[in-house]
Amino acid sequence: MALVVVNVMPKPEILDPQGKAVTGALQRLGHQGFAVRQGKRFEIQVEGEVTDARLAEIHQFAESVLANTVIENFEVVA
Amino acid sequence: MALVVVNVMPKPEILDPQGKAVTGALQRLGHQGFAVRQGKRFEIQVEGEVTDARLAEIHQFAESVLANTVIENFEVVA
Repeated sequence: MALVVVNVMPKPEILDPQGKAVTGALQRLGHQGFAVRQGKRFEIQVEGEVTDARLAEIHQFAESVLANTVIENFEVVA
Repeated sequence: MALVVVNVMPKPEILDPQGKAVTGALQRLGHQGFAVRQGKRFEIQVEGEVTDARLAEIHQFAESVLANTVIENFEVVA
């Protein structure tokens, strides 16, 4: 079993209401000087070896299932 | 401006319905041998330098605001 991580974040030019809400909450709690953007982290346990073909498969479904590439960027971290 | 990341994941012993849904969707699409757990990724832009005090502050609000430590673990990645 090997772990591959897929990070999905809102594109920089896209408004991020969740991140904005967190940033505002932190400010109200006295934490100044932080700007937060919120995204998703997928931890994927892969059966067997993480071959190039397996990684390509993960990349493919990250693009089509895990991320909405109209508004989100993703990265695959093996 | 420096970037600090906080990763928040459901604890291993906690059911993760989002991850289960993703795992099931992948299987139905023909992607076998993957087990997915879904968490959150916070990208935090920090004004000025990331000192030890700043990191301690981030750790503190990660624990109290970003994560629900009853059901989630978190890590701060500077």
